Amino acid sequence: MVKIKNPQILTQLNARQQLRQLGVLEKKATAIGTYSAVRRQSPIAPDQPEPQILDHTTQQAKLFPQIANGIFFRIAADVVWHMYQNVMKELEAGNRRSLPELHALSCCLKAVCSADAERGVEILRKSCGGHGYLSSSNLPQIYGLVTAACTYEGENTVLLLQTARFLVKQYAEGLKRKVLPHSVTYLRNAARPKWDKVVELKTLVRLLELAATERIRQTFEYLRKQRKIVKSEQVAANKAGIRLTQAATLHGRAFLARIAFEEVEKFCMELKPSLAAVLKQLVELFVLEFCLTSLSDILLAFQLNARQVDEMRTRYERLLADIRPNAVVVVDGFDFNDRVLGSTLGCYDGRVYERLMEEARKSTLNQEVVNKTFETHLKPLMQGKL
Amino acid sequence: MVKIKNPQILTQLNARQQLRQLGVLEKKATAIGTYSAVRRQSPIAPDQPEPQILDHTTQQAKLFPQIANGIFFRIAADVVWHMYQNVMKELEAGNRRSLPELHALSCCLKAVCSADAERGVEILRKSCGGHGYLSSSNLPQIYGLVTAACTYEGENTVLLLQTARFLVKQYAEGLKRKVLPHSVTYLRNAARPKWDKVVELKTLVRLLELAATERIRQTFEYLRKQRKIVKSEQVAANKAGIRLTQAATLHGRAFLARIAFEEVEKFCMELKPSLAAVLKQLVELFVLEFCLTSLSDILLAFQLNARQVDEMRTRYERLLADIRPNAVVVVDGFDFNDRVLGSTLGCYDGRVYERLMEEARKSTLNQEVVNKTFETHLKPLMQGKL
Repeated sequence: MVKIKNPQILTQLNARQQLRQLGVLEKKATAIGTYSAVRRQSPIAPDQPEPQILDHTTQQAKLFPQIANGIFFRIAADVVWHMYQNVMKELEAGNRRSLPELHALSCCLKAVCSADAERGVEILRKSCGGHGYLSSSNLPQIYGLVTAACTYEGENTVLLLQTARFLVKQYAEGLKRKVLPHSVTYLRNAARPKWDKVVELKTLVRLLELAATERIRQTFEYLRKQRKIVKSEQVAANKAGIRLTQAATLHGRAFLARIAFEEVEKFCMELKPSLAAVLKQLVELFVLEFCLTSLSDILLAFQLNARQVDEMRTRYERLLADIRPNAVVVVDGFDFNDRVLGSTLGCYDGRVYERLMEEARKSTLNQEVVNKTFETHLKPLMQGKL
Repeated sequence: MVKIKNPQILTQLNARQQLRQLGVLEKKATAIGTYSAVRRQSPIAPDQPEPQILDHTTQQAKLFPQIANGIFFRIAADVVWHMYQNVMKELEAGNRRSLPELHALSCCLKAVCSADAERGVEILRKSCGGHGYLSSSNLPQIYGLVTAACTYEGENTVLLLQTARFLVKQYAEGLKRKVLPHSVTYLRNAARPKWDKVVELKTLVRLLELAATERIRQTFEYLRKQRKIVKSEQVAANKAGIRLTQAATLHGRAFLARIAFEEVEKFCMELKPSLAAVLKQLVELFVLEFCLTSLSDILLAFQLNARQVDEMRTRYERLLADIRPNAVVVVDGFDFNDRVLGSTLGCYDGRVYERLMEEARKSTLNQEVVNKTFETHLKPLMQGKL
């Protein structure tokens, strides 16, 4: 039993468990959503039979980023767990230096990951069309669990504001040339990445860090100006609320991208080249998704021309096509038992339609060919004169 | 009874009803969400009592854009209805010229509005914290109705692809200097707006149109290139899927912004100045919300510097503050009866906590002070040796 000396620590412990749980839930949802390898619909070429819907680029764009999220949220949970253990040791020795950093990180990771997981699970649910709306798909229930995480254990907006306060403070420390905690050293790094012909992963991670730095800088300046106008620290902070939460979100994304990049570099040395290749594709997709979501912030921090943005989009599309042949195997690799998925759609043998029919037969409305209330109520009404 | 000569027309009829319904559902959700005028939490200034949570800028940013959406989706529904009636008359006279335009418009408006309404209702639900998670808030049920609209009557991605096909075709026609249908004439308008000191609404609308034009142009070029590479119209279209849907979404937003702007200009001449002022604030918020959501596309189509973007953000924040004093009245003006809202949170008299308590008392678990299963099962277990 760990001796808790500081109640704040409890939040950090929860954050780590939440990140893990969000990763698991997102993985479950992707495992179910990948039934789009079974479903066939909407011909691509008119002379071909209807393809697996997983062959539609738009469908891939719904599924594959969620597979990546599931994996890298889990990795983030492990990194935070490692940090937590270190901070606990420091606390035992009476050193509270790293506590604010850990607090700021777990706040924004919980907020960013739960918001993204919520969005992701809902995209997956909708990617199953009407079938995703059925309770028997289990996707609505998974969504219910994930979306709750946006509210409990610290409401997301409140948590982002906590992180933002830390970030603005660190930015000010950086201006005074002080040494910054590890997760925010990038705030003092002004190096502009070189844009090579092939967009490199480390360039993309750096773009996110530059975007976060610029947003934090702007928010810092805005707060300084507002403080002079309204003569109150707190009223100024309230006026800056939207900017603060957006800056914290960007920081969270930059951090997630950085650790995903670094951890995969470490992992890949131990993996078979074929497996490493797939993991590299997934981490690139994970980071590119963040870059395209935060594109306006990147454009404001680092001038990219239309051609460079097009390169990012083309790379994203190529990644989807590259991941396609391995998508089902990766999801099978999550190794969820059918009983755990509890879904008519996501099941190991792919007999989706048989299961849907079985489930439909259970409905009380389907116990007779024509429900007897038709004879007793509807038919007389229809035959009567109104 | 309207005589339907063309089955496509049915889709358009549905689209109009859906837009109306989405507007109504979003309005209902805002009416419930505005209970944040009753709830008090998180002090802004430390020497003041806890404020209405509606005074937090971050809360305003969750609520007020949804109020605007509810109003302007409804107005869009009326505009589409008017178009539909005109097209019906043309069809009676054997003229099918406007049918593709109407089809393209209703497809993307259904998709854009249902996606935004879904996001909006969920933001509103979460803005109520844990209370929004209660069925008795009625927000989860409203969400269930709204999110279904993303799937039924044409799945959103499929609809956006239909619109995109029309847009790319019109762009090509524009290059040949042909006359374009009214809703896409902007594709041939290369005029750059002037950025005045005060950001004008018509400038913002024009920015959205420029962004849409640029996206459609890029997609057109991409498709042309891909067609040569893959030698198939359809395979090229599948490869361009993500770009096509994004272009159609931008077109939908530009169109919604344009009609909101034009309709409010018309309305406001007939309204009292005090009412017109509120409507003008709401339409500005509606358009600015689109601009900030599509900021990366605007930046790629029209070079804005950091100062200009900051002006947009500051204007957005000022609008929230301006709308704040009238927010409750505007929502009351939707004139929903408590019975229609069916919510413990949204009710005319604001007696939220009493209603929550009443609802909690109905739970079977709350019929005794201590549930008898504690005595029969839990207590012996707790007292036993495990």
